[in-house]
Amino acid sequence: MIQVAVMGYGVVGSGVVEVLTQHTDSIAKRAKETINIKYILDIREFPDSPFVDKFTKNFDDIVNDEEVRVVAEVMGGVHPAYEFTKQCLLKGKSVVTSNKELVATKGAELLEIARQNNANYLFEASVGGGIPIIRPMSQCLAANEVIEVAGILNGTTNFILTKMIRENMSFDDALKMAQRLGYAERNPAADVEGHDACRKICILASLAYGKHVYPEYVHTAGITNMTLEDVAYAASWGGVIKLIGQVKRLEDGKLDITVEPMLIARDSQLASVDDVFNGILVRGDATGDVVFYGKGAGKLPTASAVVADIIDCVKHLKARKYLYWNDGGEEIVKPYAETSYPIYMRVSSTLDKQTVIEKVASLFRNSRSIVRTNAPENEFAFVTDSMVVNRQEEAIAALEQDKIHVLSKIRIADL
Amino acid sequence: MIQVAVMGYGVVGSGVVEVLTQHTDSIAKRAKETINIKYILDIREFPDSPFVDKFTKNFDDIVNDEEVRVVAEVMGGVHPAYEFTKQCLLKGKSVVTSNKELVATKGAELLEIARQNNANYLFEASVGGGIPIIRPMSQCLAANEVIEVAGILNGTTNFILTKMIRENMSFDDALKMAQRLGYAERNPAADVEGHDACRKICILASLAYGKHVYPEYVHTAGITNMTLEDVAYAASWGGVIKLIGQVKRLEDGKLDITVEPMLIARDSQLASVDDVFNGILVRGDATGDVVFYGKGAGKLPTASAVVADIIDCVKHLKARKYLYWNDGGEEIVKPYAETSYPIYMRVSSTLDKQTVIEKVASLFRNSRSIVRTNAPENEFAFVTDSMVVNRQEEAIAALEQDKIHVLSKIRIADL
Repeated sequence: MIQVAVMGYGVVGSGVVEVLTQHTDSIAKRAKETINIKYILDIREFPDSPFVDKFTKNFDDIVNDEEVRVVAEVMGGVHPAYEFTKQCLLKGKSVVTSNKELVATKGAELLEIARQNNANYLFEASVGGGIPIIRPMSQCLAANEVIEVAGILNGTTNFILTKMIRENMSFDDALKMAQRLGYAERNPAADVEGHDACRKICILASLAYGKHVYPEYVHTAGITNMTLEDVAYAASWGGVIKLIGQVKRLEDGKLDITVEPMLIARDSQLASVDDVFNGILVRGDATGDVVFYGKGAGKLPTASAVVADIIDCVKHLKARKYLYWNDGGEEIVKPYAETSYPIYMRVSSTLDKQTVIEKVASLFRNSRSIVRTNAPENEFAFVTDSMVVNRQEEAIAALEQDKIHVLSKIRIADL
Repeated sequence: MIQVAVMGYGVVGSGVVEVLTQHTDSIAKRAKETINIKYILDIREFPDSPFVDKFTKNFDDIVNDEEVRVVAEVMGGVHPAYEFTKQCLLKGKSVVTSNKELVATKGAELLEIARQNNANYLFEASVGGGIPIIRPMSQCLAANEVIEVAGILNGTTNFILTKMIRENMSFDDALKMAQRLGYAERNPAADVEGHDACRKICILASLAYGKHVYPEYVHTAGITNMTLEDVAYAASWGGVIKLIGQVKRLEDGKLDITVEPMLIARDSQLASVDDVFNGILVRGDATGDVVFYGKGAGKLPTASAVVADIIDCVKHLKARKYLYWNDGGEEIVKPYAETSYPIYMRVSSTLDKQTVIEKVASLFRNSRSIVRTNAPENEFAFVTDSMVVNRQEEAIAALEQDKIHVLSKIRIADL
């Protein structure tokens, strides 16, 4: 029998306890050991819980108990999750987590500590909830060079965008609905401003390219400025707007990594990923495009991914799993201003249509007008060829000088 | 350095050699060992190959060489692949394969021999080509009970159906195009009659439910009778026709497993899996729906999956991977005639419309008419509620008695 501890009894933590206690037999069969929860760490009281005798408020109970071999850290946040994880790993206990913030900010250090102490640090649940992605990427795609990873990594924003696209709901109304349904938190900033998606693409990038990519070096834009006008133009162009986290290695070896709304063509596999679902595309040099799709959050999907990692740790108590990346710095990331991509752009101007089209054409190569029904007379929209971000900004400044006001600018994805 | 052998130098085998020799360094990093190809087994001569000195026609060279630890069997077919695999496993060599026919017909026996000899028998490449599915199902979904697995498992038939749906091409023309493009073989029976998809769903079913499901117990229908009329009715119903392999466990513990064309609703994630792509949906009790998408065949995708298995074997030379199922018999499969599902049905009759509608309604619960443009006057189509197959057949016989001739009947999927 293997003793484990669960740190944090929130949504995911209670799900982990539920899955472990309700599937005990089938899990024992797969792990080849019975798994028993010895401790549940939480600062709150749960007097009515059937697991009341397992609760502790004292982390030392867990870290000093040599019987505990695997710890599930499902507390969220960096502190004290970081300190607790570190101490467990230093004692040779394996740690599994759903804590994307911790993995994205301290992953390289914790993986190194795990390595030195012959323990495992696994985090399948940190990206894509119940969708298997970390393990397939590190194992099944082992014989591939990863050309690109791109994904719809945040269910809350995808739900909001889906409501805007399908039901013509405004951003504010869609956000309120997401909050009412429990898909968005009272303070939705981490989701709608793209930070959650940023942590996830950082984890996937670190895994794919072997060096830690820290969130602070990643250009991150959310969906708070999305309008129904842009949604309508996207449709007339033949696509949809999605919040995409994307990373690819450029020819100079640096990473083009970003989180931002993008226009994606309707026939892309990611275009049909709607509502709270996530979809992650991994483009390998040998496999071509592989897409993983499913619910990216939720109590049981996430908990089942945490439990799968616990099982894997139990099966590998002596051997280490090969899941590792080195530390990385700002130098591995291409500055956003130097990256280039095609854009969609919506402008307003009191100038006549032909003049606007000509001025835009003089600044943006191969710009093409797109239209929507019921557009005001002074509104125009364009899609243009690929251009370096710096140059885009200069051209936009020049347009403003010419009394053409740029209302929105959205990257066009190559997915 | 670990010595491996590749048995079979056809499309996949030459791809395996290509991936292993071109990615030597990155593979060594992941496997923590350099992997060297010591033998390539093929009965043909390759005098101009850069690997000419590795070729042998004598299997004994491989099986008797104690240095060879891992063998990739990429010959295809049951014999002599079965005998060769067995002998390798009996000597404690791990075997990896893309040979779905062998796994589907002899998997339980070979897995048991592997277990007894502390070796691994891995077959990620046998289903879905380069799409990771075997490993995610056995590991990442370890904490789930699998409710259902359903997939578009054969790229050739999916290409043909896509051409019929999108371009109104006839089955014969689409098949000829697939042959011209190299997607279908000269003798396309294994693909178009559903046998290839059947082997794959048998492998997934065995993995999901722990008992070997043999192809001979699985109802298997192909797409050779698909018509453009049915494609048109499917569109008017709001869906598409796909060749689906599906398995789910019924309340009595038996498996409802089948391969047949099905109508799937347009908003299903499988509906947008087009051309030669495969899509596999795994419905878990905790994760909900997870879908894996990618190219299901092709030299490099398949080869990269084989190589990933080689890497995994090298990392687990001492430990065994937990990939196992017990033998199974006919008794684990629900007889097809006793399964039930809703259907789409197209009929012709010289009777008047109202009479046909009433007769169909008297035999099929909740039958609803569907229409298509340019249908001949004597053609009618219906969708109906779920009904046991036996009863469907009786009702169809009764319709024939009443001069209503059933031209086609297609299962409606619940995906």
